[in-house]
Amino acid sequence: MKYVHGYSGRETDRLSDQANTLASLLHHDTQYDPGSNVLEVGCGVGSQTIFLAANSPEANFTSIDMSEVSLAEAQSKILERGFRNVSFQQANLFDLPFAEESFDHIFVCFVLEHLPDPQRALAVLKNVLKEQGTITVIEGDHGSAYFHPDSLYAKKAIQCLVDAQSALGGNSLIGRQLYPLLTAAGYKNVSVDPRMVYADSSKPELVDGFTRKTFTAMVEGVEATALERKLISKAEWDKGIADLYATAEQNGVFCYTFFKATGWK
Amino acid sequence: MKYVHGYSGRETDRLSDQANTLASLLHHDTQYDPGSNVLEVGCGVGSQTIFLAANSPEANFTSIDMSEVSLAEAQSKILERGFRNVSFQQANLFDLPFAEESFDHIFVCFVLEHLPDPQRALAVLKNVLKEQGTITVIEGDHGSAYFHPDSLYAKKAIQCLVDAQSALGGNSLIGRQLYPLLTAAGYKNVSVDPRMVYADSSKPELVDGFTRKTFTAMVEGVEATALERKLISKAEWDKGIADLYATAEQNGVFCYTFFKATGWK
Repeated sequence: MKYVHGYSGRETDRLSDQANTLASLLHHDTQYDPGSNVLEVGCGVGSQTIFLAANSPEANFTSIDMSEVSLAEAQSKILERGFRNVSFQQANLFDLPFAEESFDHIFVCFVLEHLPDPQRALAVLKNVLKEQGTITVIEGDHGSAYFHPDSLYAKKAIQCLVDAQSALGGNSLIGRQLYPLLTAAGYKNVSVDPRMVYADSSKPELVDGFTRKTFTAMVEGVEATALERKLISKAEWDKGIADLYATAEQNGVFCYTFFKATGWK
Repeated sequence: MKYVHGYSGRETDRLSDQANTLASLLHHDTQYDPGSNVLEVGCGVGSQTIFLAANSPEANFTSIDMSEVSLAEAQSKILERGFRNVSFQQANLFDLPFAEESFDHIFVCFVLEHLPDPQRALAVLKNVLKEQGTITVIEGDHGSAYFHPDSLYAKKAIQCLVDAQSALGGNSLIGRQLYPLLTAAGYKNVSVDPRMVYADSSKPELVDGFTRKTFTAMVEGVEATALERKLISKAEWDKGIADLYATAEQNGVFCYTFFKATGWK
């Protein structure tokens, strides 16, 4: 699978900034009981794994990803921090090397947005989940981004990311759809809790960590693809990116919402 | 001043549904000390006044509006509920009949969005506020609305409301701008807290009270204006409204964010 954000060093930095800034907002209430077996699907370079491992030191995590390179980096992150409660495994979620009902809980963060058939993915994952087990799904939604000063060009640049992800079979507007997706996949008592990031200049660390280094950096990451596919002109692109950075200035405001969903088998 | 939503009976019902559904989300943390003097600006038919009066029974409210008709309705609402801590007065916020530094606190809800110069309004209000007094401002932001199923026509219908309000000199995207507006008007320690409404079918009362009876009803209210000004065709309008109602069906999701700001003189 091609990953819309690529696998460069800058991408790794971006994921790390993103994870630190957002960790508390997204993960503070994800905690698993001692001894429980938790499957983390699509752990990538381990940006969320380190928070899972730290928040639930006595739970056992199995973190899978398709990329051996990402897994190696995730593993070194975990070892560096001295965690011993995560085992990593190369695996495809549509061809899982686990027996039915192997896990007490499943955790899926920033993965469904990249899949052509997220509902089938959720249904497949349900097979390896025990009865009464939970699934936790976290996704962003690029259509939830709005800002001041408002800018048509910034919106166009964001739309390039949405279109590029869509061309790869993904859906970057998936956050708002978690309730119907989990319900249709057969999970019960689904509950969705939006986690909104609101950044104005009274919060300089959030402005820097999120508006600049997470969101705008992510949009910037699709420049080559957007220009190559003629989704936008170079002049409009540059204006859009400049306008996104302007939302991180003194009078700027940036809003974005992540969705955290929980369902039961 | 012409009020974009009009003054019809249905509009009064809409404001009442809106206030009941949103009261806890917006007002639960608005409480004023016993004996404090609070100015409510643009109280309209008293939809928020009843919550102010109930939450702070020993504070004294002065609620002003330009419309005598709205004030009479607000007053009957307050008397009906037995509150005795509100006095109503017909007044224009740009020509206030109060001495400087008359109030301990000011409360402004769903008013700035209708004003051509909200920053000047905030600066004028600062004159009648005591030193160390607070202002609380609540506004929506129609650009914060997104939903599933997504719909170009629903977005067009919402844009008609934005355009109609803009043609009357208002700004229905003002919520995101509260931080820079209050700061530029000279308030200190401004802090903005977004209040997001997230409605899926696990919350049928919110879907009915907010998605249908507040937001979609509000958009429907500009049909005549939108068609008259040829902002949209009748067929597109009908599709847009139908698509908004579809977000209130079994698989639908609706998101909207209000912004609550506080600043100090």
